[in-house]
Amino acid sequence: MNTSQWFTEQLPNAETAFSLKIKNRLHEEQSAFQHIEIYSTHGFGNLMVIDGCTMVSTRDNFFYHEMMSHVGLFTHPNPKKVWIIGGGDCGTLKEVLKHSTVEHAVQIDIDERVTRLAEIYFPELCESNNDPRADLKFIDGIKWVKDAAPNSVDIIIIDSTDPVGPAEGLFGENFYKDCYRCLADDGILIQQSESALLHLTLIKEMRQAMTHSGLTHQQTVFFPQCIYPSGWWSATLASKQAFMPFREQDIINKEFNTEYYNEDIHKAALAQPEFFKKAFQNK
Amino acid sequence: MNTSQWFTEQLPNAETAFSLKIKNRLHEEQSAFQHIEIYSTHGFGNLMVIDGCTMVSTRDNFFYHEMMSHVGLFTHPNPKKVWIIGGGDCGTLKEVLKHSTVEHAVQIDIDERVTRLAEIYFPELCESNNDPRADLKFIDGIKWVKDAAPNSVDIIIIDSTDPVGPAEGLFGENFYKDCYRCLADDGILIQQSESALLHLTLIKEMRQAMTHSGLTHQQTVFFPQCIYPSGWWSATLASKQAFMPFREQDIINKEFNTEYYNEDIHKAALAQPEFFKKAFQNK
Repeated sequence: MNTSQWFTEQLPNAETAFSLKIKNRLHEEQSAFQHIEIYSTHGFGNLMVIDGCTMVSTRDNFFYHEMMSHVGLFTHPNPKKVWIIGGGDCGTLKEVLKHSTVEHAVQIDIDERVTRLAEIYFPELCESNNDPRADLKFIDGIKWVKDAAPNSVDIIIIDSTDPVGPAEGLFGENFYKDCYRCLADDGILIQQSESALLHLTLIKEMRQAMTHSGLTHQQTVFFPQCIYPSGWWSATLASKQAFMPFREQDIINKEFNTEYYNEDIHKAALAQPEFFKKAFQNK
Repeated sequence: MNTSQWFTEQLPNAETAFSLKIKNRLHEEQSAFQHIEIYSTHGFGNLMVIDGCTMVSTRDNFFYHEMMSHVGLFTHPNPKKVWIIGGGDCGTLKEVLKHSTVEHAVQIDIDERVTRLAEIYFPELCESNNDPRADLKFIDGIKWVKDAAPNSVDIIIIDSTDPVGPAEGLFGENFYKDCYRCLADDGILIQQSESALLHLTLIKEMRQAMTHSGLTHQQTVFFPQCIYPSGWWSATLASKQAFMPFREQDIINKEFNTEYYNEDIHKAALAQPEFFKKAFQNK
């Protein structure tokens, strides 16, 4: 194929590659933290790429943003305070703010440029940025969690890039220990956790680090995400204590719209594939 | 990237492409029906490609083959007679024959070369080909169904290539009418039905054709399939009458192994994404 007309992401281990046909590059810059590109694609709307990895597309971001937010928030009995570590495109923030229980949602992304570009190229993801409950900070999420008061938050969503570069520390035991300290007793951490098909070892190490930090109760959930490697992504919920049954009736009665998520999809995402169950049965 | 080291499948509508890094091409031929290639890949074992489309890889075929067979067979109360239209790689046949209820499983693929190559390059998929219950026929599946006796089969699995070329007729109303005639009253047809993200119009047309044929009860199920476009695939069950509740206890007690499928995954696959529910609510 004529590679000049395509954006291609190769997996670091170079087994697979995914490409989107592009019309043109709308923007490119080296921020203080990473290399950011914006493309206009033929089939997926706009596409943001960070350090060569697809981050978000207009067409299919709803899978990821809905699953990163609603599964955790409808599992918590009454989520009022939410932190989003990363998430600079503001799509997770938008979904979080759909919950009327939420009183304060802080998005802590180290790179302000991601948000400024999202405002231009993904305005629909930023439409709740001026919600009075929203608080956008452009500082280091690791430091934020280290400095925060104990028992001060109900939900921490780690909406990070892959665990290389700026996001590497967000998958480690020291960071999880700080999260443990900040979370209320019934608090829930939600970590984007890559592909169960391609990154099973990473998920094992991440869950081990969570366990060592005291977040001993874990649940990995699965969902499609076309533009991410393998097209099948996961998030892992972690907590100090056993999860409550999720608030199914509140999902049924919710007063906001979603494109992927609903009560049946919530249940479905909890199902553990046979190979995944086996990989974790002796942990 | 150096495209000579990759096999790349571009979607016909050219929005996305998926690539696997290859070591070398093990085989290539033009059969009487289609162009068949076999590659050795770096991360996915062997790969069969038909007319430029990825068909089956050693590493990830289990998703597709398990979901094409077990969901339907555990929904039927007592599946004894099974036809597989297409399925020449024999992976679906192998899964079907894991069911002790099955007395006779006929695989009807128009192209014998697919099976002969699978025997060489995917021997693990062919290990049940000599089961006394297995019956491999290399004839036109459309003609087979047209000529078969009424009420003669419990399960018809349409394990076809995309609905272009040889498989086009397998998504049409005339074919489904013949299936309707052949199926017992509680019989179930299972059709591979592409990606709900990329091919929603095709799924709508397919389900309309099923309805017109008399197969008025339908259920689309969803599962990951990394090497297929979008990484998220579907199959659609269709029947003359309402589906019975699936045999959950029989899944829990099953005496065979799976890599993806289990009772929770069966339930999960039934969950309808919000956008999919909306697309079909007025059908």
